[in-house]
Amino acid sequence: MPTCLVFIATSVDGFIARPDGGLDWLKRVERDGEDYGFQKFFDSIDTIVIGRGTYDVTRAFETWPYLGKRCVVMTHRPTTPRVNEEFFAGTPAELLSTLEGRVYVDGGNVISQFLATGLIEQMTISQIPIVLGEGLPLFKAPGEHPLTLVESRAFPSGLVQTTWRLTART
Amino acid sequence: MPTCLVFIATSVDGFIARPDGGLDWLKRVERDGEDYGFQKFFDSIDTIVIGRGTYDVTRAFETWPYLGKRCVVMTHRPTTPRVNEEFFAGTPAELLSTLEGRVYVDGGNVISQFLATGLIEQMTISQIPIVLGEGLPLFKAPGEHPLTLVESRAFPSGLVQTTWRLTART
Repeated sequence: MPTCLVFIATSVDGFIARPDGGLDWLKRVERDGEDYGFQKFFDSIDTIVIGRGTYDVTRAFETWPYLGKRCVVMTHRPTTPRVNEEFFAGTPAELLSTLEGRVYVDGGNVISQFLATGLIEQMTISQIPIVLGEGLPLFKAPGEHPLTLVESRAFPSGLVQTTWRLTART
Repeated sequence: MPTCLVFIATSVDGFIARPDGGLDWLKRVERDGEDYGFQKFFDSIDTIVIGRGTYDVTRAFETWPYLGKRCVVMTHRPTTPRVNEEFFAGTPAELLSTLEGRVYVDGGNVISQFLATGLIEQMTISQIPIVLGEGLPLFKAPGEHPLTLVESRAFPSGLVQTTWRLTART
């Protein structure tokens, strides 16, 4: 059984993007030489699973951000891969039965779907020092999940990064 | 001009209560001799401002929780005070022009109203280690507000308490 992990930034009011998908507010915490542990996390994972919304955003990036990793897009509308991405139209549990190792689950819809089916083991949430007031929420009716605190750390930029383990899985 | 402060607990998905107002999930972090700084904070304030929703809950408590403090309830439906609480039907700005010192603003609706009008100076948010999945949100369209991190602290129970200052006010 693979290990599913979340590593995501949210506003203090829990949004992962503005209503139009805008991420400009992440600039508040951009600092030279500080990636808040992202590269170390990314190096540790084998596969990334994203939804169609995240895919359409990242597909348009100048550089394909998931280079060197297996990438699965959960969608019912497969398209032509840009690099090596695969398209999967089944359930999270069906997908996981085909995967091994450490799986990075990204994007609001996919994260909530995986959470709802109890498939997330650990979540690292970086709070950016801003209230956005509106946007795309990280959590969309994922059900109730007790958590265990693994670690919390504040950075000089004001970013507060907290790692939670899903208690039921321990 | 008084100083408006927020001191509140939320789930990791940003709810301050279950859909029916239930607060049973706060028990996850109940520990003997640990109040997460609440009494110290409460002792430091002069006035508490709450909305009708919070009032109807606290009015039913066996012990009136705001003893020794001036208490203003923002409501258009005044009722008979239980202790010394006052009822106010105007705007947050109108209310503040009648107050002095440190004001504890509590309850989702009132906090968001005060935030929206730029009247909150500092917020201490205690994240309880649970995703509730549904409930009454802390933030209800309060507009965009850049924050400055004042302090963040993790407790052995897993509660993560973070204090933010509203950047515009500094």
